[in-house]
Amino acid sequence: MNKSMVRFLLSKLLIIEAGLMLVPLIVAFLYKEPTSVIFSILGTIAILLGLGGIGSFFKPKNYHIYTKEGLLIVALCWILWAFFGALPFVFTGQIPSLIDAFFEMSSGFTTTGATILSDTAVLSPSLMFWRSFAHLIGGMGVLVFALAIMENSNNSHLEVMRAEVPGPVFGKVVSKLKDTAQILYIIYLAMFALFTLVLWLAGMPLYDSFIIGMGGAGTGGFGVYNDSIAHYNSSLITNIVSIGTLLFGVNFNLYYFLLLRKFKAFFGDEELRAYIGIIVVSVALIWLNISGLYHSEYKAFEHSLFQVANVITTTGYGITDLTVWPLFSQVILLILMFIGGSAGSTAGGMKVMRALILTKISKNQVLSSLYPNRVTTLHINNQPLNKEIQHGVLKYFGIYVMIIFGIVLVLSLDNDNFMVVFSAAASAFNNIGPMLGTGECFDIFSPFSKIVLSFAMIAGRLEIYPVLLMFIPRTWSKY
Amino acid sequence: MNKSMVRFLLSKLLIIEAGLMLVPLIVAFLYKEPTSVIFSILGTIAILLGLGGIGSFFKPKNYHIYTKEGLLIVALCWILWAFFGALPFVFTGQIPSLIDAFFEMSSGFTTTGATILSDTAVLSPSLMFWRSFAHLIGGMGVLVFALAIMENSNNSHLEVMRAEVPGPVFGKVVSKLKDTAQILYIIYLAMFALFTLVLWLAGMPLYDSFIIGMGGAGTGGFGVYNDSIAHYNSSLITNIVSIGTLLFGVNFNLYYFLLLRKFKAFFGDEELRAYIGIIVVSVALIWLNISGLYHSEYKAFEHSLFQVANVITTTGYGITDLTVWPLFSQVILLILMFIGGSAGSTAGGMKVMRALILTKISKNQVLSSLYPNRVTTLHINNQPLNKEIQHGVLKYFGIYVMIIFGIVLVLSLDNDNFMVVFSAAASAFNNIGPMLGTGECFDIFSPFSKIVLSFAMIAGRLEIYPVLLMFIPRTWSKY
Repeated sequence: MNKSMVRFLLSKLLIIEAGLMLVPLIVAFLYKEPTSVIFSILGTIAILLGLGGIGSFFKPKNYHIYTKEGLLIVALCWILWAFFGALPFVFTGQIPSLIDAFFEMSSGFTTTGATILSDTAVLSPSLMFWRSFAHLIGGMGVLVFALAIMENSNNSHLEVMRAEVPGPVFGKVVSKLKDTAQILYIIYLAMFALFTLVLWLAGMPLYDSFIIGMGGAGTGGFGVYNDSIAHYNSSLITNIVSIGTLLFGVNFNLYYFLLLRKFKAFFGDEELRAYIGIIVVSVALIWLNISGLYHSEYKAFEHSLFQVANVITTTGYGITDLTVWPLFSQVILLILMFIGGSAGSTAGGMKVMRALILTKISKNQVLSSLYPNRVTTLHINNQPLNKEIQHGVLKYFGIYVMIIFGIVLVLSLDNDNFMVVFSAAASAFNNIGPMLGTGECFDIFSPFSKIVLSFAMIAGRLEIYPVLLMFIPRTWSKY
Repeated sequence: MNKSMVRFLLSKLLIIEAGLMLVPLIVAFLYKEPTSVIFSILGTIAILLGLGGIGSFFKPKNYHIYTKEGLLIVALCWILWAFFGALPFVFTGQIPSLIDAFFEMSSGFTTTGATILSDTAVLSPSLMFWRSFAHLIGGMGVLVFALAIMENSNNSHLEVMRAEVPGPVFGKVVSKLKDTAQILYIIYLAMFALFTLVLWLAGMPLYDSFIIGMGGAGTGGFGVYNDSIAHYNSSLITNIVSIGTLLFGVNFNLYYFLLLRKFKAFFGDEELRAYIGIIVVSVALIWLNISGLYHSEYKAFEHSLFQVANVITTTGYGITDLTVWPLFSQVILLILMFIGGSAGSTAGGMKVMRALILTKISKNQVLSSLYPNRVTTLHINNQPLNKEIQHGVLKYFGIYVMIIFGIVLVLSLDNDNFMVVFSAAASAFNNIGPMLGTGECFDIFSPFSKIVLSFAMIAGRLEIYPVLLMFIPRTWSKY
């Protein structure tokens, strides 16, 4: 392994994080927060600059890295950013436990939105902003962001980006990777700005618009108040959040097609069609199922749309107490949790693309037991789907399910309610956030479980392999 | 499709079922049961002989069948046997609802052991015997049984057997298929006889020994009393049942190797080693986890072994109230439910062989993301595992998980407890029987759900594809 290159790149990434922390620092000044908060942020920045400066002082002899290093840098970067990003919370005492703060920032950068805080009022405006700012950064991928602004971008970064951009099929929008990253980030930030603006115009306070905007854009889900979106008690805001999050669950490459006026490529996209189809069917079924619970059919529809949007995009904002919903609706949401958003979006979960491929493979498998000699080729968007991608998806699914049960097993040591444990595992690993249908918060778990859940969030976000690799001794060996 | 051959073979199978019903008829005479019971059984036999006679009167012009017909015959045979086998319960009024009785006999033939009876005392000795006799017949596969006794056995039956013998790898023990079926059935029946004898010698009443013997041999789980094995209040009987069921969860081909003194092939078998390994680890973990609940360490061990044996082999006998066990132990049992017994045994579930292959594939997948150019061949028992089998296992797993969630979704319309719904789906589909950890019985579900669960039991038993095929219109078309 090219250890000095790993050290060098990670050090640069720490310096970038120091730069990002200027944002909460400005917020702290604007809100005239106590000096203890300002010094906590400044102290963290100093630590980051110190470590980053030392680590990047000696340049590596050899700049070349392989897949192994690429995956490792991705996994370590997220862990380090979550760790150092957690320090201001500990220094200020707003979250006294380092493990809790690490959990909270892992949840932030992975755009999960799961919290150990039973009351968000303990956070000062600056640190609440920082927590949500992590959603915005993490949404498109920490490294893609870094890539977009780093100067010495060369092709070895391809592996890094491949490890981080969600989905089984990786496509470059334009030939140069750095340009791709920049285009995607510009679209993303423009959409975030628009979303925030619309929220503000709809009557939300400016600060809240930013928080909800960042949480929605990154499909994260950290809000301002304990009762999330319900706090605003506004149909308009509810619907804006529903539509907004749904838009962030679409593959961003498709938006680039829109800009290029390639409407056929946009509307013909099979994943987009499947995504819309799943949403329409789910909203309809839940609407039917819960209509008796609300005083008007419209209200039931609004709640159904909101929940479907917030679960399939793995955002996780709340508006109602889901524990009173019938189990049928909850199971639909549970299935949506696993499907997740589109590949190449900011959403988590298995991704619609994988669910689509899995469905095609399964259908074909059943038919081919009818005609054993039949040879068929599966297609996605009129392109033949090669065997390698098919098997990759199947393997991913197998590993996915096994990991979920592994997490459930660990969590079952802490809690005796199967629904709570299953929901927590599925929520963290799929980067949803709240433990749907349980009314619980993550502070019920032990420190060990919280660390496991933090790693689960990062593994879910990075599509598993980079995190699993960290635990294989061979990864750390010298080739 | 060769419809006349399907009609012809199914008719013959109905005549065979008529023959099997002589067994409960004899029991009814022995126990001097009321004439209503005797006439109910006789009436069912008459119906079976009548339909079977008419259907097999005209011989088909063409005896040749393809995979399609083979799979269809298997699926329809199980459904018809369960349906007609249910009639005596309805005629006598012991189970008044036809749907309930169909559920009960599907549960019997699929060796599930799930019941809609909250009190088994409503059954007369003959019909209780019939219900358990179905376990014995179903254990090795209804069709394998039929094959072993049918005269015109030719190679077209290969497809039938392949559809029915559990597991991803199908091996013929000897060259002629009919001989293989006979050898396996002889080993099976000899083991059943020995098991029953040992239970009787241990002090169990003779009738009960037969019931528990048949339920154990088929890894079914129907018992005599509502409190299952706990009724006998005997450590000796508990341990005999534990060991006995574990032996029936082993691939029967291996016992044939033992008879041939091929000890190396027996003890070196990777699936057997994995099976034993999983059992040892699970028993140890549960023992540790529950030791505080029992007055002695030994008792905790005994209960742990009993539950692990009854769940991994998908037998499902009970001895204790599992709802008081900690969730950790319950999750282990849940995972064992899905793993199931060995391929080629009488057990249900996904099969240890598939779990083993899945683990090897996953491990290899993670390692190959370290070294993308690495090409590795996986092995089972020193034989290279070809890609087709690997992908077959992966696809099977994908379809398996999707079906489980489909069943959960249907059941969630009837009940609002996630644990109950998930447990019922997993229990039926994996052919376990009781809804572990819930203390519920299947009578809580609606008629529609009971039909879905009956099909789920049959699908689980037949490894899915034959049952799925029935629902594809193309299956019924003329080639």
